[in-house]
Amino acid sequence: MPDLLNTLRATLLMGPGPSMVAPAVYQAIAKPTIGHLDPVFIGLMDAVQDDLRSLLNTGNTLTLPISGTGSAGMETCFVNLIEQGDRVLILSNGVFGTRMAEVAGRLGAEVDSMDFNWGRPVDTQQVAARLGEKKYDLIGVVHAETSTGVLNPVQQIGELVRENGALYLVDSVTGFGGIPVEIDAWGVDAFYSGTQKCLSCPPGLSPVSFSPRAAEKLQNRKTKVPNWYLDLNLICGYWTGESSGSGGKRAYHHTAPINMNYALYAALREIINEGTEAVFARHLKAHQQLVDGLEDRGLAMLVTPCARLPMLNAVKIPQGVDEAAVRTALLSEHAIEIGAGLGPLAGKIWRIGLMGHTARPENVERLLTALDSVI
Amino acid sequence: MPDLLNTLRATLLMGPGPSMVAPAVYQAIAKPTIGHLDPVFIGLMDAVQDDLRSLLNTGNTLTLPISGTGSAGMETCFVNLIEQGDRVLILSNGVFGTRMAEVAGRLGAEVDSMDFNWGRPVDTQQVAARLGEKKYDLIGVVHAETSTGVLNPVQQIGELVRENGALYLVDSVTGFGGIPVEIDAWGVDAFYSGTQKCLSCPPGLSPVSFSPRAAEKLQNRKTKVPNWYLDLNLICGYWTGESSGSGGKRAYHHTAPINMNYALYAALREIINEGTEAVFARHLKAHQQLVDGLEDRGLAMLVTPCARLPMLNAVKIPQGVDEAAVRTALLSEHAIEIGAGLGPLAGKIWRIGLMGHTARPENVERLLTALDSVI
Repeated sequence: MPDLLNTLRATLLMGPGPSMVAPAVYQAIAKPTIGHLDPVFIGLMDAVQDDLRSLLNTGNTLTLPISGTGSAGMETCFVNLIEQGDRVLILSNGVFGTRMAEVAGRLGAEVDSMDFNWGRPVDTQQVAARLGEKKYDLIGVVHAETSTGVLNPVQQIGELVRENGALYLVDSVTGFGGIPVEIDAWGVDAFYSGTQKCLSCPPGLSPVSFSPRAAEKLQNRKTKVPNWYLDLNLICGYWTGESSGSGGKRAYHHTAPINMNYALYAALREIINEGTEAVFARHLKAHQQLVDGLEDRGLAMLVTPCARLPMLNAVKIPQGVDEAAVRTALLSEHAIEIGAGLGPLAGKIWRIGLMGHTARPENVERLLTALDSVI
Repeated sequence: MPDLLNTLRATLLMGPGPSMVAPAVYQAIAKPTIGHLDPVFIGLMDAVQDDLRSLLNTGNTLTLPISGTGSAGMETCFVNLIEQGDRVLILSNGVFGTRMAEVAGRLGAEVDSMDFNWGRPVDTQQVAARLGEKKYDLIGVVHAETSTGVLNPVQQIGELVRENGALYLVDSVTGFGGIPVEIDAWGVDAFYSGTQKCLSCPPGLSPVSFSPRAAEKLQNRKTKVPNWYLDLNLICGYWTGESSGSGGKRAYHHTAPINMNYALYAALREIINEGTEAVFARHLKAHQQLVDGLEDRGLAMLVTPCARLPMLNAVKIPQGVDEAAVRTALLSEHAIEIGAGLGPLAGKIWRIGLMGHTARPENVERLLTALDSVI
């Protein structure tokens, strides 16, 4: 074993992701690699898709993990659903909303952004007013803004989007696995997430799901998807056997990240075995414990209580505190990682993650005790 | 541990990839996940880049693993180097040459393909004639054609490309780690590979390298790279700290697949510790042992000896043999995977891989013995 890895120290991951990984997932990722067309692997692919559908509360056939990280899922949704000149509206209140607009713009969409205060949820009244004025082809929003800790009202926005007639794209990279996601009930047409947040799997895959409406838009494109690697027509030929002329047989597209898929399978099984209600309750409880502990210490949260994410806690940095020094001390002296602020919130907040396997009382306690010694 | 993984049986991987993974690499991939901006991980990223440069015989600063499989590496090279209307020539004699033309076409390039016989190397005389007639912006070729087992004369082609003035793109998904790759000496401007072939790492990453000329073309683009996830300007801000205004600090782009990078690091160390000369000799020896054994049994190779790849052996299927039944019996009765033919070679050849850790005399012997019992 090489030196750099021999000296690797386990860290308590309480940043914006990656999160702690369960022992069963580490065992899974190191299982023997098999072929990407081996019937055993095809069986595992089917099981992963079934588990994703179950946890996402969707009947969408097109539900599978993209062979890249969460941002590859974002790219996948846009590049498959957008053609030159399509009218796209992004509801943006953080880094990942901004990123959506950037990705869509690079693909030739006519992008409108409605920008909301970083740290506050998207205002549905303003959205309703805008949607009454203009028709869109696609409207995108981030469910759980990792950069601010804000929960956006995706269900209510979904109702407005349906009236407008646009496709509805939701980013739940940070939400999925920690708070409910109801793809079908909320009218979500395209969805993506990542493995390294509340699924508590190492980073490397991005679950996506397309509604029948989104799949139809994909099939009726006037132009080929300008990205071969992420073309869902081709990827479905491998993952579901559904592509023109394949007759249900799995067609080779690219070599799937075999061991990462083992890990995702084990991570999804962990959640299903614990039960989603119990998992969500555990996140909420750890979140409340953290907020109480921080407020006891005179620290303040960025986000108003009703819009707070349990798994991503934005904490205001007290005046006179060197925020980077605190993070460095936590990491080097206590082996605890927390995150910095991004963009306009750099230097103003810390981001404390309670994602998946991390969301446990003993971890919250360990962080609070460590904070006492470094602030 | 979930059931599907508990019953997973180790397979002798002798197909076109993935290949056998060394024990040290399995140990590495299951090491504790740490943060993607943790100084320890940044140190590992630097080490991976140094090892890649050393094994690729290049001084290219821009040398890093893309967070996707080999095809993501192909997409990366084209999407960063091509703009609308660029003149591209693909020298094609197999599936992966065809794929190059498809990827470039989707990105709006004016693509010419020179198609050579599948199973024969690219003819440099014909290439020289064509390059005398027309100037290109980029010329692409596959070093080791995984679909046919042919080694293309990339060094000689490189000389012709230099005279033409085009950028030179080489796919060595299957070659890298099994035969010499000399990026600088051969004048290669853009290069990509995959982890699951001769590097003997699970699939999931794609090493790429850009020469200073290619990096300059990237910097002088008239339009933004139409793919945010694979934009090397942004990725370099994370991997090398070199992007506008970053001042050497690593800027978050996407969350790198941490554990896959541990695995790649360990896999590169395995090769460096064994020594490349020894590794290449081991591939050649196993290849000769396989060819001798197959010919002793009356089987014939597709490719002429001087153009054969040691790590990918295309074997003609004898008349009257049900090729799929043989592969199924090898897998189910002997736990050995070999590959089928693709495209026009489907049903006509088997593809036997001797990649990386797989290329050992005991594996060749085991396959030959198994073949005796199933053909």
